Amino acid sequence: MNKKVAVFRKERFNAAHRLNNPNLSDMENQMLFGKCNSPNFHGHNYDLTVKVTGYVDPKTGYVIDTKILSNLIDETILEKFDHRNLNLDLVEFKDLNPTAENIAMIIYNILREKINASLELKIILNETEKNYVEYPA
Amino acid sequence: MNKKVAVFRKERFNAAHRLNNPNLSDMENQMLFGKCNSPNFHGHNYDLTVKVTGYVDPKTGYVIDTKILSNLIDETILEKFDHRNLNLDLVEFKDLNPTAENIAMIIYNILREKINASLELKIILNETEKNYVEYPA
Amino acid sequence: MNKKVAVFRKERFNAAHRLNNPNLSDMENQMLFGKCNSPNFHGHNYDLTVKVTGYVDPKTGYVIDTKILSNLIDETILEKFDHRNLNLDLVEFKDLNPTAENIAMIIYNILREKINASLELKIILNETEKNYVEYPA
Amino acid sequence: MNKKVAVFRKERFNAAHRLNNPNLSDMENQMLFGKCNSPNFHGHNYDLTVKVTGYVDPKTGYVIDTKILSNLIDETILEKFDHRNLNLDLVEFKDLNPTAENIAMIIYNILREKINASLELKIILNETEKNYVEYPA
Amino acid sequence: MNKKVAVFRKERFNAAHRLNNPNLSDMENQMLFGKCNSPNFHGHNYDLTVKVTGYVDPKTGYVIDTKILSNLIDETILEKFDHRNLNLDLVEFKDLNPTAENIAMIIYNILREKINASLELKIILNETEKNYVEYPA
Amino acid sequence: MNKKVAVFRKERFNAAHRLNNPNLSDMENQMLFGKCNSPNFHGHNYDLTVKVTGYVDPKTGYVIDTKILSNLIDETILEKFDHRNLNLDLVEFKDLNPTAENIAMIIYNILREKINASLELKIILNETEKNYVEYPA
Repeated sequence: MNKKVAVFRKERFNAAHRLNNPNLSDMENQMLFGKCNSPNFHGHNYDLTVKVTGYVDPKTGYVIDTKILSNLIDETILEKFDHRNLNLDLVEFKDLNPTAENIAMIIYNILREKINASLELKIILNETEKNYVEYPA
Repeated sequence: MNKKVAVFRKERFNAAHRLNNPNLSDMENQMLFGKCNSPNFHGHNYDLTVKVTGYVDPKTGYVIDTKILSNLIDETILEKFDHRNLNLDLVEFKDLNPTAENIAMIIYNILREKINASLELKIILNETEKNYVEYPA
Repeated sequence: MNKKVAVFRKERFNAAHRLNNPNLSDMENQMLFGKCNSPNFHGHNYDLTVKVTGYVDPKTGYVIDTKILSNLIDETILEKFDHRNLNLDLVEFKDLNPTAENIAMIIYNILREKINASLELKIILNETEKNYVEYPA
Repeated sequence: MNKKVAVFRKERFNAAHRLNNPNLSDMENQMLFGKCNSPNFHGHNYDLTVKVTGYVDPKTGYVIDTKILSNLIDETILEKFDHRNLNLDLVEFKDLNPTAENIAMIIYNILREKINASLELKIILNETEKNYVEYPA
Repeated sequence: MNKKVAVFRKERFNAAHRLNNPNLSDMENQMLFGKCNSPNFHGHNYDLTVKVTGYVDPKTGYVIDTKILSNLIDETILEKFDHRNLNLDLVEFKDLNPTAENIAMIIYNILREKINASLELKIILNETEKNYVEYPA
Repeated sequence: MNKKVAVFRKERFNAAHRLNNPNLSDMENQMLFGKCNSPNFHGHNYDLTVKVTGYVDPKTGYVIDTKILSNLIDETILEKFDHRNLNLDLVEFKDLNPTAENIAMIIYNILREKINASLELKIILNETEKNYVEYPA
C-alpha cells in the first residue's frame, strides 16, 4: 500500500516590517532587535513554501492540485501580505512582533482553516537566503 | 554513540509528459488538468534528489558512497526517464497519470529494491522551481 | 548626464520538443542530435529573461514598466510556448529545428515588433541550468 | 598580451520603499505604480553586484582585492541602504522615485568616486528574482 | 497552544581536504576514494545550515536570535574551518576521515555544547550542490 | 539576416589552492592575501561557464553542439583542474598566483586553441557565490 506524499508549493511576497514588541519600551526594543528595529521599517522578499501531506487521490494522481493550492495562497495570503507593511497594514501584527516565526504561525493559522483536515500542513518561510523558519517543526 | 545521518544526492532529467488519467473521458481530463492535459505533451527539467539514511560506516566515513549512489540513479532511473516521453515511452505510466506524486512513487519503488534494506530511502522530485513532492512523506 | 540602463524581466515556460532538422534523414538527425532526437519528445522548464535597454523616463523612473513588460511576454510568448509541443504546436518550428538558439531568435523576432524601436532588446534563454543562450550576442 | 578582466562582488541589503514621484499627484502615482505605490511601504531583499573591470596587477594577480571592494561597498552602500526606508531615510530619494533603475544610478555615483578612474564600474541590482537592472548598460 | 518552530541559519566556509582513512593502506584509500583521495588535497565551498528547534519566546518572537546564532557559528565553527585544510589543520580529523558525514558530526558536537539543551539541533552540510548531508537524520 | 548568438555551458570543478606570489616574501604574501594565504591550502567549488559566440549553423541550429563543448571542457579543463591542488599539481601555477583572474586566463588560453577561431570565447569563473570573474571583459 502506498504511503503519504508531501506536496510543496512555493510563492513569494514583498513586505515592509520592523521588529518591535509593542509591550516593551523603545530602549528595550532597540537593544533586542538592533537595526531590525529601525523606526521607518525595512523590508524583504519573503519566499513562502506551503507543504501539504496526505494520500494520493487515485482519480487525479494528486495529493492536492497545486493550481488550487496556489490560488488559495494567492487569495488568503498574498492578497493580505504582498506589498504591505506588516506592522501597519495587518491587524494580526497590531500586538505581535512580525518575526519570521510569528509570520509563519499567522500564515499557518489562516491556511489551516481552509485546507481539509485530513491533510497535514507545514509552512516554510524564508526571510532572507540565510534565515528561514518552519512551522510546525 | 552516533546517530543516523541522511545523505542526499541530486540528479536531473528532462522529460515530456501530459497529465491524463486513461480511465477518464477526454472532457473530464481537460477539466481536471487544464493546460497540463495539452494533447501534444509539454515537458520539464526534473530535479531528483535521493535521500538515504543510515549509520556511518567507520571504515569509509560514508553512509553510502555518493559515487555508487549516483551510478545507481544513472543506471536505473536516468537511463529510463531522461529524454523520454513518460506517457508513451515508459510502461509504468501506461495506466498511471504521470503526476509528480506518481513519478516519485515509481522512482522510489525502483530504487528501494536496489538499496540495502538497512538504509531508509526518500525521494524528492522538483517538477518546477515552484512545485515539488517528497515520498514517502 | 545619465547613461542607458538595462532592465531584465525573468519568466518561465514548460514545453516539449525534440531536436530534428526536417530537411535531413532520420539517420542523420539521430547522428547529429543523439538522445535529443528521441522520437516521442522530451521537455524542459525554459527560463526566459528579456533584457530591454534605454534611457530612464524621468516621470516614472522606469526604462520600461516591468508589469507592462511581463504582460507583453505573457500575451505574446507564454500563451504560445507554455505547455506546448514546440515541434507540433508552433508553426514557427514546422521547418525549423527548435534548438535553444532558434527558440531565442523566434522569441526575439516576436517581441522586437512589440517593443518601441528606441529600446534595445536581448533574449536570454536557459534550456537547462547548464545550457543557455543569448540573442543577439 | 593579456586583456582586461571583470571582477564581480555580490552583496545584499534589505530595505523598505514605495514607488512614488513626489512631483505627481496621489492619483497619478497610484495609476502609474499600482500596488508598488502602497502608502505604508513594502520592501525587498536587494542583491547588489558590483562589476569592476581592468587589467590584472601582476604583483597580486587581482584587478581589485575583493576584500577591499567588499569593505568599500559595506562602508559606502550597505551602511546607508541596509535596514533603511529608502524614501524616508535617504536624502538621495527625497525628490527621486526609488525604482531599481534610480537606486542603481545612485549606487553607481557613490562608488564611482571611490574607485580608481582606471577601472570601469557597473552596477547590477536585483529587486526580486524576476526583476533586475544594470547600470550603465 | 503554539507548536515548536524550527529556525535555520545558513553560513559558508571554504576548506581543503582529501578523503583518506589513516588506518588503511594507501592502496585501499585510493580504491575506496578515487580522485577524492588525490594526495595534494582538493577543496569545496561548504554551505552550512544550522537548524534550531524550540518554542517561540513571547518577549522576542524568536526561538533564537539569528544574529546570536550567526555569531556563535562564526566563533566556534567558521574560525576553525574556514580557509583551512581539514586534514592538516584540525585536530578533530587527525584520525578521522573528513567526509561530509563526519564533518557534520564534528560541527554538531561543537555546537551542541553551546546551545541550550531545551533546543533541538540539526546540521545540514552541502559539500557540493549535488551532495549534502543532514545530522542527526 | 540573423545576428550572432552566444551559447553558454556551465561545468564545475573542486580544487584546493592558496593565494601566494612565489616572488614575494612570506610576510608580504601574508599581508596581501590574509587568510587566503593560509599555508596548508583551502578550496572551492569552482563554477566554470564557457561562452562561445558565433553564427548559427543552419544544418544543426547550433552555434556549437553543447555536448561537444562539454566533452572538450571535460577533457582539457576538468581532467586537469578537478580534485587537484592548483599550486602543487598544475605546472601553470608554478610561478603564477592562482587567483580567480589568473585561473580564468589559463582556462581561456587552453580552450582558445581548441575552439574554431571564427567563434568568440569568454570564460566566467565563480570562486564563491559572492566572487566571480569574466575574461576577457
